[in-house]
Amino acid sequence: MKPQSRPSAGRLLYAQSGGVTAVINATAAGVIEAARAKGVKVYAARNGILGALREELIDTSKETAAAIAALRHTPGGAFGSCRYKLKSLEANRAEYERLIEVLRAHDIRWFLYNGGNDSADTALKISQLGKAMGYDIRCIGVPKTVDNDLAVTDCCPGFGSVAKYTAVSVLEASLDVASMADTSTKVFILEVMGRHAGWIAAAAGLAGEGADAPPHLILFPERVFDEAAFLAKVKATVERVGWCTVVASEGIRNAEGQFLAEAGTRDAFGHSQLGGVAPVLAALVKEKLGYKYHWALPDYLQRSARHLASKTDADQAYAVGKAAVEYALAGKNAVMPVIVRSSDAPYRWKIEPAELSKIANREKKMPNNFLTRDGFGITAAARRYLAPLIQGEAPLPYGKDGLPKYVRLKNIAVERKLPSFKP
Amino acid sequence: MKPQSRPSAGRLLYAQSGGVTAVINATAAGVIEAARAKGVKVYAARNGILGALREELIDTSKETAAAIAALRHTPGGAFGSCRYKLKSLEANRAEYERLIEVLRAHDIRWFLYNGGNDSADTALKISQLGKAMGYDIRCIGVPKTVDNDLAVTDCCPGFGSVAKYTAVSVLEASLDVASMADTSTKVFILEVMGRHAGWIAAAAGLAGEGADAPPHLILFPERVFDEAAFLAKVKATVERVGWCTVVASEGIRNAEGQFLAEAGTRDAFGHSQLGGVAPVLAALVKEKLGYKYHWALPDYLQRSARHLASKTDADQAYAVGKAAVEYALAGKNAVMPVIVRSSDAPYRWKIEPAELSKIANREKKMPNNFLTRDGFGITAAARRYLAPLIQGEAPLPYGKDGLPKYVRLKNIAVERKLPSFKP
Repeated sequence: MKPQSRPSAGRLLYAQSGGVTAVINATAAGVIEAARAKGVKVYAARNGILGALREELIDTSKETAAAIAALRHTPGGAFGSCRYKLKSLEANRAEYERLIEVLRAHDIRWFLYNGGNDSADTALKISQLGKAMGYDIRCIGVPKTVDNDLAVTDCCPGFGSVAKYTAVSVLEASLDVASMADTSTKVFILEVMGRHAGWIAAAAGLAGEGADAPPHLILFPERVFDEAAFLAKVKATVERVGWCTVVASEGIRNAEGQFLAEAGTRDAFGHSQLGGVAPVLAALVKEKLGYKYHWALPDYLQRSARHLASKTDADQAYAVGKAAVEYALAGKNAVMPVIVRSSDAPYRWKIEPAELSKIANREKKMPNNFLTRDGFGITAAARRYLAPLIQGEAPLPYGKDGLPKYVRLKNIAVERKLPSFKP
Repeated sequence: MKPQSRPSAGRLLYAQSGGVTAVINATAAGVIEAARAKGVKVYAARNGILGALREELIDTSKETAAAIAALRHTPGGAFGSCRYKLKSLEANRAEYERLIEVLRAHDIRWFLYNGGNDSADTALKISQLGKAMGYDIRCIGVPKTVDNDLAVTDCCPGFGSVAKYTAVSVLEASLDVASMADTSTKVFILEVMGRHAGWIAAAAGLAGEGADAPPHLILFPERVFDEAAFLAKVKATVERVGWCTVVASEGIRNAEGQFLAEAGTRDAFGHSQLGGVAPVLAALVKEKLGYKYHWALPDYLQRSARHLASKTDADQAYAVGKAAVEYALAGKNAVMPVIVRSSDAPYRWKIEPAELSKIANREKKMPNNFLTRDGFGITAAARRYLAPLIQGEAPLPYGKDGLPKYVRLKNIAVERKLPSFKP
C-alpha cells in the first residue's frame, strides 16, 4: 500500500488551531516548503483538528510554489482554524479511534499542530497515541498566539506583529490627539487584546519613553484596576501634557475580580455587554473628570494586520514551521520548536525543540519586574525584552488596485475513504 | 517697516483646522516648500485660527528642510488644529478686529486655512476683511477632510488614505473571520467614521466585489436603517458564505431619525452612550439571529494611519498646499485649490481654483447612483469613482526600533507684539 520506494514514505498533516494571526500562514509556508524540499507530501486539515476528525483534508501539493510562497505575506488561516479541544482518551475514546482511522487511511505519519497552549495539549495527546493505540504517529506542536503566553519559548509567533501594530497605532493616534487637545479630545483610550496576560498592552509602551510620551497609562490584567489611582494619573497627565493616551487590556478586573468590560454597560436588550472595557473607562473619565474622550477597539484588525507585520515575527513564524518538519522527519515526537534568545541587542535567536508536556495548558504571564511600581507602565527590563520583537518591516506586494496581494489557495480536497463522522 | 527689497514682501500664515488626517502635514509641506522656493516666510498658527487670535505664531523658517520634508509622511497636525468657527462680522466684531491687529503686527499678507467646510467658511470670512476693515489680506482655503464631503472638489485630501485603511482592514479582518467561522465568530462588524455622509463606509466596498466577497453589507447614513432587511441579509449571508462582514457608518439612524449609536446602550452611569453603533448592531445580531459576533471601532486609528496612506491621497495633499501658495502669491483671494478629475482609468487629475463661496458650509453626500438598490452595497459607478483614490502606496521611513520615523517640529514661537486676548 505505502510507496515504500520513497525515502520518506507517508504523509505529513498540518493543521491550524485557535485564533489566527498575521503570520500563521508564514508558518504554513515554512512547513510546506520544508516538506517539499524533502519530497514529503503535505495534507492540511480543514478547520484544524476538526478537519482531521471529519476527514476533510486538503492536498497542498495541488498548490503552485508561488501560491505557497505568497502564504508568507497573507494573514488569516489559509486552511481554516478552530476552537476545539480534544478531551482525554478516557473521556472520548471514539474521537481518538476516529482520528487514528483517518490518519491510517491516508498514511499520515507526522502531524503538525499549529496553535497556542490548548493546541499544545491536543498535540501532546496525539503524540501519545502511538503507544496507546498502536499507530506510529509523530506529533509536533508548532507555536502560534498573539497573546505571547506560551511557556518555555522566549516569544510566540504572531505576537511581534500585533505588538508592532499596537505601538504604531498608539504613536499615530496620539499625534492626532495631541493636535486636537486644545479644543477637542483630551483623553484617548485604546483597548487591546489580552484576557489574562498583558503582553500586547505592554508592547504599546514601545510607542514612547518618558512620563510625557504616549501611552501615558497602560492597564494590565496582572494588576487590579484601581479607579482612584487611574483617575488621578489621567488628571495629572492632562494637566501636565494637555492630553492623555490610555491603553487598556480587555481583561482588566476590579477588586471584586469582575471584568470591567462586564461591570457597566448594558446593550439595547438590557444584557450586560461583553468586550468593551474602553467605553467603560471613557464613561468614567467623562463622569469623574469631565474630559472629552475618544476610544478605539481594533479587535480583529490588530491580529490580522499583515500590512504592518514585524519582520522579526514573520521570520520566526516561518522558521518554526521549517524546524517542525525537520524535527518530525528526524523522528522527534511530543516536542515544539521554540524560540531561544541569546542576546537582546543585537537581537539573536535560534530555534530549539522543547517538550510539549512543559508547554501544554500553561500560561506565561508578564514577570513582575516588567511593570512599573504604580502598575501603569513598563520598565526598562520590559523594553529590552519587547523591543527586538517589533523590529524590521516585512513589506507586502500591492496590486494596481491599491490592495495587498493576498493569496487564496485552491484548497483541493483529498478524496474521502471513510464514512462520515460528527465530532 | 516691510522689507520692500524682497519681491514678495510680507509673510504667509498657514493654519490647520478641524479633525486632522494622515496627510494634512503633507499639505503643510507643500505650502512651506513652495513658499520657501519663492522666498516667502511662513508662519504657522498654533491650533488653527485660535493661534491667530491669541497671537500664538510659529516661525517655520526655524525648521530644517529635512524636517519640512518629513512632514510629508507624518500624521496628525504638526502645528495643532482646532474646532472653532468664527461668528459673523456683525456678531463678533472684536474677534475680527483682533485678527487684523495680529495680521498687521506681523505683516501677514496671505492666509491659508487648511480644513473642511466650516474652515472654508472661516477662510471666506477672512477673505472679505480686506474690504470690510481696510487691511489687504488674501485668503485661500486649502481642502482637507477624511469625510470627503466638500463641494466642488472631486475628492478631499485625507479621504483616500482613510479609504485605503478601511478597505485593507476589511480585507484582512475578513480573512481572519473566514478562518474561524466554523467554530467561532460568524458576524464581524466594523464601525467607520461618517456622521452624515457614507464615503468612508463606501470605500470599504473596494475590499471585494461580488455577493460572496466582504464586506457583505454596508450601512450608510444616507439610508434609514431597516432592521428587518439588515437581519435578513446577515442571515442569508451566513447561511450561504458561512460568515458575514458588515461595515457601518457611525451616523446611521432609524426611521425615527435617531442615531442607532444612541438608541440602545447605557454606560455604567446609566447615560446614553455615544459613538458606538457597532455594539448596538452586534447585540441585535446576537439577540435576533444567535450568531457569535465580534466588532471593531478603529476611531482615530483610521484617520491617523499614515503607515497605510494612499499615494494618490498623499500626492494630492501636497499638491493643494503648493497650489494654494501659488494662488496666494498671484493675488488670488477667496478661492480654494480643488481636485478636478479628467479620467477614471487611467486616473488623471489636476488642481484648479474654485470660489470659496461655493464650498463654505455645503456638504456633499453620496450620489444616489453610488448605492445599490437594497442600500447595502456600492455600485459600479461608485467603484469607478473610489478605486483611483486608494491606489499607490506611500512608503515610510522606519527606524531601527521598528517604528515609523515621524518628525516632531521645534515649533519656535514668534515673539509677541500685542497684549493677550481671549477668543
